Amino acid sequence: MVRPSTLEKLDARLAQVRAGLCIGLDPDPERLPPGLGSGVEAIVAFNRAIIAATRSRAAAYKPNLAFYEVWGAAGWQALQATLAAIPAEIPVILDAKRGDIGNTARMYARALFEELGGDAVTVSPYMGPDSLQPFVAYADRLTFVLTATSNPGAAFLQDRQDAAGVPLYLRVAELARELDGQPGAVGLVVGATRPEVVPAIRARVPGQWLLVPGIGAQGGDLAALAPILGERVLFNVSREVLYASSGTDFAEAAEAAARRLQDAIFSVRC
Amino acid sequence: MVRPSTLEKLDARLAQVRAGLCIGLDPDPERLPPGLGSGVEAIVAFNRAIIAATRSRAAAYKPNLAFYEVWGAAGWQALQATLAAIPAEIPVILDAKRGDIGNTARMYARALFEELGGDAVTVSPYMGPDSLQPFVAYADRLTFVLTATSNPGAAFLQDRQDAAGVPLYLRVAELARELDGQPGAVGLVVGATRPEVVPAIRARVPGQWLLVPGIGAQGGDLAALAPILGERVLFNVSREVLYASSGTDFAEAAEAAARRLQDAIFSVRC
Repeated sequence: MVRPSTLEKLDARLAQVRAGLCIGLDPDPERLPPGLGSGVEAIVAFNRAIIAATRSRAAAYKPNLAFYEVWGAAGWQALQATLAAIPAEIPVILDAKRGDIGNTARMYARALFEELGGDAVTVSPYMGPDSLQPFVAYADRLTFVLTATSNPGAAFLQDRQDAAGVPLYLRVAELARELDGQPGAVGLVVGATRPEVVPAIRARVPGQWLLVPGIGAQGGDLAALAPILGERVLFNVSREVLYASSGTDFAEAAEAAARRLQDAIFSVRC
Repeated sequence: MVRPSTLEKLDARLAQVRAGLCIGLDPDPERLPPGLGSGVEAIVAFNRAIIAATRSRAAAYKPNLAFYEVWGAAGWQALQATLAAIPAEIPVILDAKRGDIGNTARMYARALFEELGGDAVTVSPYMGPDSLQPFVAYADRLTFVLTATSNPGAAFLQDRQDAAGVPLYLRVAELARELDGQPGAVGLVVGATRPEVVPAIRARVPGQWLLVPGIGAQGGDLAALAPILGERVLFNVSREVLYASSGTDFAEAAEAAARRLQDAIFSVRC
């Protein structure tokens, strides 16, 4: 069977769920509900329950590798067990934020796209175009480039204006456009906490996917964002779904939170 | 037993080997010599032989995580087996180039400093100060911030000048100075292929460690660099040592290459 491209898979999935809700699978060992056991077994049990509860709502899932690497080799096995629990029709974004020189970046790309089989990845642009190219070379996948991130310190480098008065995040957006050519296989990470940067970024990448973290626990305003984000947007939410309840009803609470978010995204996008 | 700080460990090691030669443990599956078996077993056998051959020469070892992650969970086990083969007195730099928001960066820092037990790490500054702080918070370790890297595309972001005419890599150097406070636990990655950027960087971080890749296969000129780099420098070499011979004499060839590099670094630094 030919594997569908990530863009095809995303389009098909969006047609099903009708809202670009991406659920971050970031299991914090200090916030897991009781009754799941301990260590990586608890992580996998938690993720499986979250996936089972939200799989009819999620446009995509996004595990952040940090939450697995913290457990070492066993954590990678837990990540693989988590990926195996995600239905084949739901795209998986591996949030790794990797970035390295060419021959090393090729190893990271192989690890994420081949060994783990991710549909999409996140990468960091600090080392420049040749550090991103080995990911972009997987033209049937999707590579999201960190552009304007949602954290408090993002502005330190990203907002710095060059001699032409252009902030760095727009130079990264221009790079994401150049690397993309025509197929739309390069996306951008743009934080929901920074609506002021969205219009200029979107103007530079009108047809490319945006991955937008920050509408949940980090406080981004969905209604204000929707009109300026345009088409092809995935809103990522992690904590607001995963920890909707700290009790044994966590899965039901996650389902309710995912439904509410799905409805909220649907309502502002139509 | 109290674990020595990385700075103490590095100073003690430098007093022994008298040259800041860091050997990159980046086992490329396509370049392994014959006779070592296959897969991760070959990786571990190769690394053990390289470590045994170069352990009296190396000031530090630097595994790049990409070359292990490409093997998935088994690769992490191979990394742990490799770390176990490194003598306790030789500092280990985990070259991971991680960078993420605060709570996620804390997980990466735990993975690298606690789960894997690294003495030092590399991190990427694109997301700003709060993405680096969780690493720097380990004050007894050493965090190397990517500043001016050795790859061809490095200049795209790193050399961009802001409105005050200051290139981005110097803003990162200033950030590395600010994050450091007094203890010297923040270092900088500065490529040997870019001698023109060294003096201004060194002027901003006179007492901090520099990790300098690029004097081997990438072509940096050691003699030209030494006078401007100042004290506290680790020169990283990977391919020139690992693949000094493609035959079964690879370990002897690695020892000879390491000795030659140790001598070359010693001669320019005295």
